[in-house]
Amino acid sequence: MAITFHYGSGSPFSWRVWLALEHKHLAYEFRLMSLQSGELKRPEYLATNPRGKVPTLIDDGFAIRESAVILEYLEERYPDRPILPRDPRGRATARRVAAEVDHYFYPVGRRLFEQTLFRSDGAGDSVVVSQALAELKRELSYLEGVLDGDYFAGSLSLADFTLYPMLALVKRLHERQPQHVAGSMIGPKLAGFMRRIEQLPYFLKTIPPHWKE
Amino acid sequence: MAITFHYGSGSPFSWRVWLALEHKHLAYEFRLMSLQSGELKRPEYLATNPRGKVPTLIDDGFAIRESAVILEYLEERYPDRPILPRDPRGRATARRVAAEVDHYFYPVGRRLFEQTLFRSDGAGDSVVVSQALAELKRELSYLEGVLDGDYFAGSLSLADFTLYPMLALVKRLHERQPQHVAGSMIGPKLAGFMRRIEQLPYFLKTIPPHWKE
Repeated sequence: MAITFHYGSGSPFSWRVWLALEHKHLAYEFRLMSLQSGELKRPEYLATNPRGKVPTLIDDGFAIRESAVILEYLEERYPDRPILPRDPRGRATARRVAAEVDHYFYPVGRRLFEQTLFRSDGAGDSVVVSQALAELKRELSYLEGVLDGDYFAGSLSLADFTLYPMLALVKRLHERQPQHVAGSMIGPKLAGFMRRIEQLPYFLKTIPPHWKE
Repeated sequence: MAITFHYGSGSPFSWRVWLALEHKHLAYEFRLMSLQSGELKRPEYLATNPRGKVPTLIDDGFAIRESAVILEYLEERYPDRPILPRDPRGRATARRVAAEVDHYFYPVGRRLFEQTLFRSDGAGDSVVVSQALAELKRELSYLEGVLDGDYFAGSLSLADFTLYPMLALVKRLHERQPQHVAGSMIGPKLAGFMRRIEQLPYFLKTIPPHWKE
């Protein structure tokens, strides 16, 4: 098998790659990596991913890291069932939305989730939480405004696969810690977008394994 | 003229795009935007860049923001004098180095420069500075280790245009505030890489205007 996919459960960066692999109907060996056990810091993994992060994709012996780069590689190497539009403007739109998720949504999301969803004791720094919630609200409002149609760049693309896992984390935060009312920040267009992704034939397979427990 | 380039002096994101425009011998209208005057928050600019950031590139009426996305767009729309290798593995390497600059080097650089280079009063938070210097040292050591040849992905590419401005900011910090000894973190291979970029025929034109004052 040509492709090996090193995945971490709950990692939004891993999830986007999983969605793309499934979308493209590619065969791959799935390696569920533990994010807690130190497995990512072992020499054999660091040899393919020196920062000890997930995901890593290995294609015929070539290791690729950084999820946005993996998506571009998959699109060039396996162009069937594309995840980018054909025209330069559509491609720029898809890449821009994905870049905005990484540069603006993810940093605020990480600050929020580290103080809420990712804590075993529940209550994090309330000042950090309220500031992050305010910023998150602006990002979600921005995204609600730019969604024009079913998907962010016309047809289903890497923009959608990049954004969806972050929205799913917001939804999960709302389900587990409803006091933050994070779910109410997801507007009607974004909620419809989430439902469309959740109805993709391969979606259920990609839900983080530990979310199903 | 098809291309308008909204540029901010000293912005590493703007600089990478300027290098690519020059490398590709493209004609463009150059708009020097003030980063201090509020010009970036005026409605006419926000219409093309809702976050009020630089750079923005407008090509035949189509506005593109996020510098990494602009580079990909330029490469697809104007493929002559390429800024990506031809083979998928070389392209993945170039994009990975550029992504690593944005995701790891830039955040630590910003923290450092905000407490040093970008302060008019000179002395920032010494704890933040020393932590950022330690992280910067690790990033620069990593980059020194992965540079194998003249450029980061074989031939000159968007990886080099993305990295160089960040290294130039480290060098400038060293020149202006030598007490941080930031320059000593740039190893011999990275120093050679910087000299190669600085010898490109169009390099001098792209030095931030306010650095020449």
